Amino acid sequence: MSTDHSFLCEAIAEAEQGFAEGGVPIGAVLVEEGRVVARGHNRRVQQGDPIAHGEMDCLRQAGRRASYRGTTLYTTLSPCMMCAGTIVQFKIPRVVIGENRSFGGNEEFLRARGVEVLVLDDPRCLELMLRFQREKPAVWAEDIAE
Amino acid sequence: MSTDHSFLCEAIAEAEQGFAEGGVPIGAVLVEEGRVVARGHNRRVQQGDPIAHGEMDCLRQAGRRASYRGTTLYTTLSPCMMCAGTIVQFKIPRVVIGENRSFGGNEEFLRARGVEVLVLDDPRCLELMLRFQREKPAVWAEDIAE
Repeated sequence: MSTDHSFLCEAIAEAEQGFAEGGVPIGAVLVEEGRVVARGHNRRVQQGDPIAHGEMDCLRQAGRRASYRGTTLYTTLSPCMMCAGTIVQFKIPRVVIGENRSFGGNEEFLRARGVEVLVLDDPRCLELMLRFQREKPAVWAEDIAE
Repeated sequence: MSTDHSFLCEAIAEAEQGFAEGGVPIGAVLVEEGRVVARGHNRRVQQGDPIAHGEMDCLRQAGRRASYRGTTLYTTLSPCMMCAGTIVQFKIPRVVIGENRSFGGNEEFLRARGVEVLVLDDPRCLELMLRFQREKPAVWAEDIAE
């Protein structure tokens, strides 16, 4: 298994924890110099917090930093416009995405602003999202403001 | 004083509270049907939270919503790429900005995605930001990842 797949597994573990909590099953980890420096998952349901997407929760857990140079953000699902804007604002240079079949569309926005984007098209990520979208369509619609 | 200026005053009060707390002096309020439904200010310093920009903190305080239709977000400073992405993602239809002289650049990003953007060019907002940028340049650089 590649290093990227290994770190994606850690993001999937976060997504699964969120699902077990009754939440939106999207997880993320921030990696720097070959180690995970922060983890997070969507907490909209758990904390009643609409900005707590998986990527945002992970960046909140990472705390204050002078720079994100040399970091990679792993996320189980393709970033929404909030999270994509944050990646650009924070100058995170590299993003690894579990899947972008159940939701996506901001990959080119990121690439056009110099972010390296890798989509792993992982079947576990897709299966978890499809199950969630099927079981809780109203929560999912709310999470993406549709 | 116009209604927009009145609501901007409420965002300025949030910014001033943040400054008094030793934080980044940027405030925001979310208005719906002529009344303030949520308030917030940048809490990077106070909570060690890099995603807690004024607009984000306000949207967090607003809690879960099915829709932002009919809302206006007032912010003392032009939204960064994180906050602009969030406005688009949440489909907030209207943004009123205190000033965009000390920081800006995402007005066209918002307008191109259908958001109505009004810049009031308020001297109190500009004065507060310039004072903060002069007194705490390192915190400001960190807040915009520069």
